[in-house]
Amino acid sequence: MALSTKPLSGMRQRLPQEFRVEKYVTETLSLSSVLAGFEEYDGPVIEPLALFAAKSGDELVGRQSYCFTDRGKREVILRPEMTPSLARMVAAQGELQLPVRWFSTPLCYRYERPQRGRVREFLQFNLDILGSEKLAAELEVILVLQGIMVSFKAPSSIYRIGWSSRRFMTDALSRCGVKEEHSAAVFSAIDKRDKMSAEKWADLLLGACDNDNGVATQVIALVSVQSLSDNWLVDLMSGSSAFEEVVEFNQLLEGVGIPSAVFSPGVVRGLDYYTGIVFELMDTGGSNNRSLCGGGRYDNLVGLFGNKKISGVGFGLGVLTLTLFLETYGLIPPGVKKAAPADVYIAVASADVVSSAGRLATFLRSQGIRVMMDVSGKKLGKQFNEASRYGIAFVVTVGSEEVASNRYKMKNLTDGTVFTGSPEEISRELK
Amino acid sequence: MALSTKPLSGMRQRLPQEFRVEKYVTETLSLSSVLAGFEEYDGPVIEPLALFAAKSGDELVGRQSYCFTDRGKREVILRPEMTPSLARMVAAQGELQLPVRWFSTPLCYRYERPQRGRVREFLQFNLDILGSEKLAAELEVILVLQGIMVSFKAPSSIYRIGWSSRRFMTDALSRCGVKEEHSAAVFSAIDKRDKMSAEKWADLLLGACDNDNGVATQVIALVSVQSLSDNWLVDLMSGSSAFEEVVEFNQLLEGVGIPSAVFSPGVVRGLDYYTGIVFELMDTGGSNNRSLCGGGRYDNLVGLFGNKKISGVGFGLGVLTLTLFLETYGLIPPGVKKAAPADVYIAVASADVVSSAGRLATFLRSQGIRVMMDVSGKKLGKQFNEASRYGIAFVVTVGSEEVASNRYKMKNLTDGTVFTGSPEEISRELK
Repeated sequence: MALSTKPLSGMRQRLPQEFRVEKYVTETLSLSSVLAGFEEYDGPVIEPLALFAAKSGDELVGRQSYCFTDRGKREVILRPEMTPSLARMVAAQGELQLPVRWFSTPLCYRYERPQRGRVREFLQFNLDILGSEKLAAELEVILVLQGIMVSFKAPSSIYRIGWSSRRFMTDALSRCGVKEEHSAAVFSAIDKRDKMSAEKWADLLLGACDNDNGVATQVIALVSVQSLSDNWLVDLMSGSSAFEEVVEFNQLLEGVGIPSAVFSPGVVRGLDYYTGIVFELMDTGGSNNRSLCGGGRYDNLVGLFGNKKISGVGFGLGVLTLTLFLETYGLIPPGVKKAAPADVYIAVASADVVSSAGRLATFLRSQGIRVMMDVSGKKLGKQFNEASRYGIAFVVTVGSEEVASNRYKMKNLTDGTVFTGSPEEISRELK
Repeated sequence: MALSTKPLSGMRQRLPQEFRVEKYVTETLSLSSVLAGFEEYDGPVIEPLALFAAKSGDELVGRQSYCFTDRGKREVILRPEMTPSLARMVAAQGELQLPVRWFSTPLCYRYERPQRGRVREFLQFNLDILGSEKLAAELEVILVLQGIMVSFKAPSSIYRIGWSSRRFMTDALSRCGVKEEHSAAVFSAIDKRDKMSAEKWADLLLGACDNDNGVATQVIALVSVQSLSDNWLVDLMSGSSAFEEVVEFNQLLEGVGIPSAVFSPGVVRGLDYYTGIVFELMDTGGSNNRSLCGGGRYDNLVGLFGNKKISGVGFGLGVLTLTLFLETYGLIPPGVKKAAPADVYIAVASADVVSSAGRLATFLRSQGIRVMMDVSGKKLGKQFNEASRYGIAFVVTVGSEEVASNRYKMKNLTDGTVFTGSPEEISRELK
């Protein structure tokens, strides 16, 4: 029986045209990071299950993971996210210069039902600062995120960076009457607010608040707050240091001037390890309702590896989700998909000049010219057609006469003109 | 208990300095491919087990694979090599323009005992042409391989591209008296020739030849042949079309002039699917005794996916093995490891100017300047030390006076000189 020509559901497969689009996106992410002094790293896809079981949350590890026992009887997992591996790498470098500013674009794995923007094998861009507890670190990663959107020429009207603070919310929920034992459930409910109808969500929240209507009403008021100068909020948070930090961070953002950054108490992010400021990037147009990016401060992750305590802040950004966002708004430059794979095509007139064609190709390539050489052995007309279909602008023909005289005809397929010259002259003409 | 700070044995983890070296290698591979008109693609890491069970050989799938059952009860494997996925992608594209010239640098997985140059998770560069049955295709992929070595400035004295042909060897072994039923065992024995002592290998070969001393002696003579004009060989292969093809390919190589390419009948390559010309790249110095690269012609792989028959030729090259080779010969440029992560460091004098520093950083980055901004909040002297440790050449200081006057001091850490100016003037000076 013939094997299927399809990859497994949710897996990442990229033909050259698709690859070019993905590469445009990942290279723009990379460039924005490099401009901010961040350095690239990478870690293993296969990790000990225990690395994620410790902190990532039950849903991710227990129900959405690719985990198995390897031939050496180790319980392993295909990483569902990058941050725990990053924390380990930093923890292992005793003498490392802190803070570190690192980024990576790893392949990650989650066994979820595939749908638009959600697959099982995905590239997730990650950018983090470890070793600084200052709000300047939060500011810097948000500046990079903002810089990324500017690099993609995304107008600030089409996206929003919503932010809040876990520490602030823990305090605020307590002041709203949420008991400590219900706090995790309420956080989880708040995280699901954008994923269901208002009524269903109100029910979920009420359940999380142990069916206390008064408390649930307070929580709804809290997540609906639009401004840090809201009177009800200021009264509620009187004397809270967590609230003061939030106000301070807001001033930093306003001082730099990032209009897309908006205080949004309903942003709590799903990962268990966040402790401070959290944020996410959303499409404000509604065509892409998953967050494009989520991040925040994690204080206790590096400590899992020993007695060092190193605080970190960073974000993860799904390359596919971002690509769909860019395509929705027409922000992938048309040239990315249509780029020709070579500057010149070498047409080979007969089998006895293949070596000579190879020599010419080698020479032109050594001059930095992208040369596609015919390997089909088809008739010249078909070779010209192939060059044309690829969008290659020039064709140089190699035949026995040309080899004997060392002078070659180069046709410009755009305007039909012909240039004749030695390999050196052809090279100069192409440049 | 604290989690281990080490990744699992054989897994790939790259700190920024290591990442830069790996990236130098993969980008050089990529550039050489692009210069030859090849296009980049990628496929899934997780593949159906059946995709590899069909053709890759029992050792790879049965004993060295990472395979498991996923949450949907599928038998899956982490790809041990790329070619079957490539064949599927080409088979699925009914209307694809053939031949295709594609390359990729996928992560691959093999459960082997880790040792120098051999790990469990590795990047393997792959380059293939599918859809041409002409020897021009073999020539072209070997030209790219040669171009790669030239790009790395590797002198031709330190490596050899040994090549032969499976079809030729099948015919030759038969003429040496090897019975058809022993052919696979003899191929397997020949493939192991460089991995054991001459005596042990003679024993292995004798066994594979069903203990027929006369036949084994002939096979030893065959794999010891150094030249295609060897009289014994020419007599043995009289009238063989497979031999004629080998002679023709030798003429092509000599016509282009690739001194490192050497006919080597002992090169047969381990993968089951090769059918024609095969080749490998070896370090002639002996410090790295694994082949750096192996490849060849495979005629029957795409046919597994239906009734289309598309012939391919290509090679796989281990990025780590190549990197060790380059390091052995001092071919990694020193600047690759030591590169500074930014052009300028912004030192922040006090907490009240963090926003202003953020604005200055954003402006300079928008001008294409790589800016590392302080996020440590340490004293200025320590910030200057950090810039210096990173090898960053310039430090701009932001304090309340500078912000008020909009004029900043930029110190050149190399010569101690100071430039003072507006953000625009600083930007021009840095360029």
